[in-house]
Amino acid sequence: MTQDTQSRAPWEALAELVTAGDRAGVKALMETLEPLESVRVVARLDDDERAKLLALLAPEDAADVIEHMPDVHAADALESMAPEDAARILEELPSDAQADLLGDLESVEAEAILAQMEPADAAELRELAAYPEDSAGGLMLTELVQVPARSTVDEVIDSIRQHAEEYAGYDIQYVYVVDEAERLVGVLRLRDLLMAPRNVRVERVMLRDPHSVRDDAGLDELMHFFEEHHFFGAPVLDEDGVLCGVLRRSGVEAALAEQSDETFRRTQGIVGGEELRSMPLLLRSRRRLAWLSVNIVLNVLAASVIALNQDTLEAVIALAVFLPIISDMSGCSGNQAVAVSLRELTLGTIKASDLRPVLLGEIGLGILNGLVLGGLIGVVAWAWKGNPWLGLVAGGALALNTLVAVCIGGAIPLVLRRLGKDPALAAGPILTTVTDMCGFFLVLSLAAMMLERLV
Amino acid sequence: MTQDTQSRAPWEALAELVTAGDRAGVKALMETLEPLESVRVVARLDDDERAKLLALLAPEDAADVIEHMPDVHAADALESMAPEDAARILEELPSDAQADLLGDLESVEAEAILAQMEPADAAELRELAAYPEDSAGGLMLTELVQVPARSTVDEVIDSIRQHAEEYAGYDIQYVYVVDEAERLVGVLRLRDLLMAPRNVRVERVMLRDPHSVRDDAGLDELMHFFEEHHFFGAPVLDEDGVLCGVLRRSGVEAALAEQSDETFRRTQGIVGGEELRSMPLLLRSRRRLAWLSVNIVLNVLAASVIALNQDTLEAVIALAVFLPIISDMSGCSGNQAVAVSLRELTLGTIKASDLRPVLLGEIGLGILNGLVLGGLIGVVAWAWKGNPWLGLVAGGALALNTLVAVCIGGAIPLVLRRLGKDPALAAGPILTTVTDMCGFFLVLSLAAMMLERLV
Repeated sequence: MTQDTQSRAPWEALAELVTAGDRAGVKALMETLEPLESVRVVARLDDDERAKLLALLAPEDAADVIEHMPDVHAADALESMAPEDAARILEELPSDAQADLLGDLESVEAEAILAQMEPADAAELRELAAYPEDSAGGLMLTELVQVPARSTVDEVIDSIRQHAEEYAGYDIQYVYVVDEAERLVGVLRLRDLLMAPRNVRVERVMLRDPHSVRDDAGLDELMHFFEEHHFFGAPVLDEDGVLCGVLRRSGVEAALAEQSDETFRRTQGIVGGEELRSMPLLLRSRRRLAWLSVNIVLNVLAASVIALNQDTLEAVIALAVFLPIISDMSGCSGNQAVAVSLRELTLGTIKASDLRPVLLGEIGLGILNGLVLGGLIGVVAWAWKGNPWLGLVAGGALALNTLVAVCIGGAIPLVLRRLGKDPALAAGPILTTVTDMCGFFLVLSLAAMMLERLV
Repeated sequence: MTQDTQSRAPWEALAELVTAGDRAGVKALMETLEPLESVRVVARLDDDERAKLLALLAPEDAADVIEHMPDVHAADALESMAPEDAARILEELPSDAQADLLGDLESVEAEAILAQMEPADAAELRELAAYPEDSAGGLMLTELVQVPARSTVDEVIDSIRQHAEEYAGYDIQYVYVVDEAERLVGVLRLRDLLMAPRNVRVERVMLRDPHSVRDDAGLDELMHFFEEHHFFGAPVLDEDGVLCGVLRRSGVEAALAEQSDETFRRTQGIVGGEELRSMPLLLRSRRRLAWLSVNIVLNVLAASVIALNQDTLEAVIALAVFLPIISDMSGCSGNQAVAVSLRELTLGTIKASDLRPVLLGEIGLGILNGLVLGGLIGVVAWAWKGNPWLGLVAGGALALNTLVAVCIGGAIPLVLRRLGKDPALAAGPILTTVTDMCGFFLVLSLAAMMLERLV
């Protein structure tokens, strides 16, 4: 590294070394970076530079860098590398990460990379990548030790020694015992092996009928499996009972965390996949607009209620001040109810058909909060124009609409779940549109009813 | 179970058996329920019934039920039980769950329960409960096997055998080797023990200088630790290097998932703790109002911009239709930018001081999306009233305000993070207030500038 590279931002120095193809310089610079800092520095490179960086690093270092990249960056980088370089890096990753990455690639590039791997590895990886990402098959590792039921304890210990080198980076916790058809028949805990005589058959030491999960089990089912059982991991079986991998509890927990994060992003209108600011502007714009354009149509629809009651508004222009307040406050109240329903669905304290207890829980609260919020706005309106009737209209409309909003907000996630739709994505726009229309209608029709007292 | 109890909802039958103190009936009914169903049935009981249910079950069954309850239910139930019953149930739980629950109790009740436990257990638990919930100390388990460095392999195997019974429910993966002052000096993997001669000292077999985490390490630090290292768990040391527990990767992943869920709830206005619809109405109402009352003040503040420009609005009443649209659409655009910033902070691709790249990324997008959305609304306004100037005002205001919203939305999470505030909680209200005020101002002042063309 020259003096020069240290005086600028580290990603500028790195980009320069990468462009110059300075393998030693790149390695030296990467080694000076804290792990957290290196994530940020690599993210600042452009797609080309990231691909070149990975090609310049030793495969195991490149694999380390790729594991900490956002998935979209990793996929882009692998796609723009020579397939043989990409294959060498991929081989350094655990099998679940290999399958995830491969699933993110365009199929042409994925095939080109697979063609550079050992045929057996490629076939296994192809199978893994075919599983849905959030199924047991998609989350499992294939790095495991399996032995025939007729092996002796001594043979098993040999097998562990051999795999210990092969899978140096993994914690091996169990040995899986299979029959001639590779069906799982038992599990050996290392601590039981420790205490067993060396010459007995493992059939006699193993735990029979071990708990296992099916390869097509989804995330919810897996979450409940690990809630029921205090295991670090579980064997994954296909429909014939054949052992295909091992699922770690931490893999399930990580997938759940990722799912929560994604739910959050979807409620905030980041749909159609991850967005990073390093992605092309037009792609980011198009994805955000996909969501916004639905919302703008719904907004125009809701505002048409105002347009239809323009006469009332013209007579009492002060009402215009309260329309956005009622729209926004009802949205807030409704969103709270949505969040509680989503949470209760996650915790399992309600299921999608439990509309009755949800509505009962929200009606009382809606009346209470409606009275408080409506009262507040009513007093503000009265004080502002000195007209108690204006207070009655604004406050009454907000009170009623709060009740509507919490009931709809509480119910929507359940209804969407029953319809098989994603509650996180659709609940917000539906809620806002309904509560806006209802709120505008309430303000303007209450005002029309007592028009001579307002003007 | 009588015929009668089967004809009604299972929680009604359970409530009746609990009230009657029918221990056998309760046990029989609980056994007929699927695990998921039992979560929901127990959630439907009231606080008293839940406490009685737990007291009627055998401690290990009660512990199983309590582990699947929402935390607030578990804490309420333990508080209303006899302390000696509560202590017996608590003792059946893993140490991290014990500490979590104890931390959720009122201190008087917690002390009463601790008084019923073995003094040594109580002292350890008190120490555990003192750690912040999301620190290594708060997440760790104390169920571990530790041996002095001078032990032989044979002695260690004895120790494992003994703990295997004591900690039957836990997977023991490592043995921790400590010096005379209980400082960690090495780690033994079970597979290394398997291959070692039985009479050597463990000092010779163990891995020296094992990776460990400090007991006060926070969740972010722990997440990065497990990203760096492919371990299932890590020893936790205090400031003197004394071994105090073992932290499992899955415990960290679970805490991260919980944190994401909570972030989501806070953005939706569920603050001040978990809400379940089974909680008292007044408590739920008060907590939701705490958030809503801040929002209503901010809303009134924003709407005052309309009130101050009432003359313009009176002259061009059609503008009233566009005010809520611009308010809502700017909120949507801004929220997208908030979500992307929160995500990039989590991924580590930006840090809190990276305002420049965030703003650069949002300005281009804000101009693009502003032109599209503004164009849409402009055309709608023009077509509605046949006045292109109305289109120019509504569209121009939305276009400009979209740019404002994405820049503010992108920047707020970074600024709040730097100020040490929770971005999830405060970003929404700040964003909405600023974009509302700015949007209303833009519509009404653009309109005022070209008033004679609008009327």
